[in-house]
Amino acid sequence: MAWTKKDLLDLEYLTAEEITTILDTARSFYEVSTRTIKKVPALRGKTVVNLFYEASTRTRASFEIAEKRLSADVLNVNVSVSSVTKGETLLDTVKNLCAYKIDVIVIRHSVSGSPLYLARNIEASVINAGDGAHEHPTQALLDIYTLRERLGELKGRQIAIVGDIAHSRVARSNIWGLTKLGAKVTVVAPPTLVPRDIERMGVAVSHRLDEAIARADAVNMLRIQREREKQTLFPSLREYSKLFGLDEEKIKDLPEGMLVMHPGPINRGVEISGAVADGPHSVILEQVTNGLAVRMAVLFLVAGGTSLHPESLGT
Amino acid sequence: MAWTKKDLLDLEYLTAEEITTILDTARSFYEVSTRTIKKVPALRGKTVVNLFYEASTRTRASFEIAEKRLSADVLNVNVSVSSVTKGETLLDTVKNLCAYKIDVIVIRHSVSGSPLYLARNIEASVINAGDGAHEHPTQALLDIYTLRERLGELKGRQIAIVGDIAHSRVARSNIWGLTKLGAKVTVVAPPTLVPRDIERMGVAVSHRLDEAIARADAVNMLRIQREREKQTLFPSLREYSKLFGLDEEKIKDLPEGMLVMHPGPINRGVEISGAVADGPHSVILEQVTNGLAVRMAVLFLVAGGTSLHPESLGT
Amino acid sequence: MAWTKKDLLDLEYLTAEEITTILDTARSFYEVSTRTIKKVPALRGKTVVNLFYEASTRTRASFEIAEKRLSADVLNVNVSVSSVTKGETLLDTVKNLCAYKIDVIVIRHSVSGSPLYLARNIEASVINAGDGAHEHPTQALLDIYTLRERLGELKGRQIAIVGDIAHSRVARSNIWGLTKLGAKVTVVAPPTLVPRDIERMGVAVSHRLDEAIARADAVNMLRIQREREKQTLFPSLREYSKLFGLDEEKIKDLPEGMLVMHPGPINRGVEISGAVADGPHSVILEQVTNGLAVRMAVLFLVAGGTSLHPESLGT
Repeated sequence: MAWTKKDLLDLEYLTAEEITTILDTARSFYEVSTRTIKKVPALRGKTVVNLFYEASTRTRASFEIAEKRLSADVLNVNVSVSSVTKGETLLDTVKNLCAYKIDVIVIRHSVSGSPLYLARNIEASVINAGDGAHEHPTQALLDIYTLRERLGELKGRQIAIVGDIAHSRVARSNIWGLTKLGAKVTVVAPPTLVPRDIERMGVAVSHRLDEAIARADAVNMLRIQREREKQTLFPSLREYSKLFGLDEEKIKDLPEGMLVMHPGPINRGVEISGAVADGPHSVILEQVTNGLAVRMAVLFLVAGGTSLHPESLGT
Repeated sequence: MAWTKKDLLDLEYLTAEEITTILDTARSFYEVSTRTIKKVPALRGKTVVNLFYEASTRTRASFEIAEKRLSADVLNVNVSVSSVTKGETLLDTVKNLCAYKIDVIVIRHSVSGSPLYLARNIEASVINAGDGAHEHPTQALLDIYTLRERLGELKGRQIAIVGDIAHSRVARSNIWGLTKLGAKVTVVAPPTLVPRDIERMGVAVSHRLDEAIARADAVNMLRIQREREKQTLFPSLREYSKLFGLDEEKIKDLPEGMLVMHPGPINRGVEISGAVADGPHSVILEQVTNGLAVRMAVLFLVAGGTSLHPESLGT
Repeated sequence: MAWTKKDLLDLEYLTAEEITTILDTARSFYEVSTRTIKKVPALRGKTVVNLFYEASTRTRASFEIAEKRLSADVLNVNVSVSSVTKGETLLDTVKNLCAYKIDVIVIRHSVSGSPLYLARNIEASVINAGDGAHEHPTQALLDIYTLRERLGELKGRQIAIVGDIAHSRVARSNIWGLTKLGAKVTVVAPPTLVPRDIERMGVAVSHRLDEAIARADAVNMLRIQREREKQTLFPSLREYSKLFGLDEEKIKDLPEGMLVMHPGPINRGVEISGAVADGPHSVILEQVTNGLAVRMAVLFLVAGGTSLHPESLGT
């Protein structure tokens, strides 16, 4: 299927076919990073701006390497809270960048919906790199890519997402994407961390990790934000870890071949023990590698690459 | 006219012919950013350092994109006040950078005259990206470029510059450049924000925005720094805005075709209302686009490009 | 001699032959930065990450320019203390970066031994850009390169290293490298700044700068950290400067041709006076220029360049 959208804003409004197009394209780009010369001219002479209103090492690094391996010209703009207060609106900032005839803007912002708002008001393509508690579509796409590579067809597969569902854009994007592809999703968390009416998204809810694990093909362990402890959304990190963390004890009961995922950065000893993170079930570093391929694919598609001719992938 | 200067430090010491050479060169580079492949090899294998001692998103972004579209190797060095206190002098810092055989250094510094001081002591070309309250030549050049594109010949044209003239390097550079090209400049501000003896620069002074607008071909609204309010240089932002800001009320009286300019970032509702910024008189985003072309031209010229052979502009 | 090591971690475990291989390779790269087009395709399509856990303008700039002149794709990651406390371990951060199939990681970290630890656990090449008070091998290599260019064969040459020997990774790396090449090293400092048993590294110790200078072919003046004053490791900066700094008075007695070096950034008037830094003995800016060539050589060698075919150095 040919890609037709200008932007990648969310998985909620993508079709299963569009998601599959991204994943298939990512597979072609995966190979580029295994070459001696890890570079293709696909975006040569195009300008990509990484506009980050929240600090991020990992996602920004992944996008930046993807952009450079596609031969794009890259501009990083990290906006701290202090300069935001200088008075310029988000749209003015972005319209100024667009006046340079940039091609793609990758944006992370704490306000949900800001990428959509921008996309409707500018000509450049917008890629959402995380907006508030709304969506983080490229993270979910790389999770789904990893699952598909390992498990094949996702229809009917059981995927557990464990952790702070209420505040997680990763969880939301995963739920939209996985359910569209026919997977069965269970969210696992203490009641305080599950949003009311989450079942309407087509997922099951469990408050017991052991039960959820017993029937899962893969479990995606979300990072727990230490500040939630102060908000008394759970008694203590120690208690959370004991009930909802994956440790050596619980992993003994994991079925062989069950996948353990984590969007990173991991809190070793909190939501996941070191032995599990580095153990045979873990595909955490595969997720990172796949994320690069997924982001190269998304950048390529929104920038107007509708097919993968040899010259796009040649060096 | 062939360009012969090593540096671009100010407009005060440029001739009208030199200014025109930059504007004409910029016109050739404007076209590059409208191509599918927005890149020319003009500065390939040359190294440009952006050395910013003051925070700047806009000017740095504009220079950085210009440099990358010229295929230069780019190094960003942002020096915070804290590391300056480490003891190394400005000249030592710059001489160290020059030891890498860099070609161009783009510098922003709070001390007036520092680009000139450096230019006299190093071999690399120096571009002043704003020095204290002295000059900001590339900003004025892009303003003048925009005026010339819109109004044609500037001789005899009436240009009003409104705002904090006393502290504005943008105003000073504009005054030098515009008067050299024969335009008639009026500065408009409360008396506390007009430097004594400004008339010696060849400009008229007005304290009434309505009067100045009535006869202007273009009005350049300077950004007002909120900290001036604390310095009691005007009663309040609200008062300033009412008397010297452009709002929907005042714009009703603007002659058709009169241009509204702003160097950005704009304070919507202070020196300019949203309706004016986005309205038919505004050329604010054109200024930004033109700024890229002007900076590509300046980088090209100081780096030794004396003419525009096809190979400089070919991809 | 062909280079066989994956990493550059220290000079302690390099042989004289390996050091000489780096210096000889650097000589070939030195020429690249004298060309009109200062760029070679040696690392095209390879990805280099500069991972700095300590603030650094100079070393980072030197590596970044070296990488870009080798045509590598470059990612800068500056990790502040605040984000380190987010909970991810150093090895997790680096393994994540390695999941992008990066080729070389240049790391600066306050913990001695961290580059070695990483090198043993990842496939990518590691270059130590300074680890705690342990080593700073590329700085010493550029010092030695400079000495060799100026003095020829180093066997039997007298080199004085002056300053805070106890806390200096530059001193340690210089001592290892110089003694391996047969030079005679004297460390010169107040007793509080000399580590106990330093003689075991094969150096002489002096507490009198005048004596050491009298017989030296070169003197390497280390930067004094102002915070040592608060630790009362010497009476005062003024006192230190008088006894162990190089000023116009002392330089009168320097033999013609004696070299004065400094790793920078210099504290003019503390460890070295302005007249000395800019005088005929000083090779400080040569060191900086040579550092670029040395870092190009190291990047080239660890990334797998075993010989310098014309195509590696062609444009």
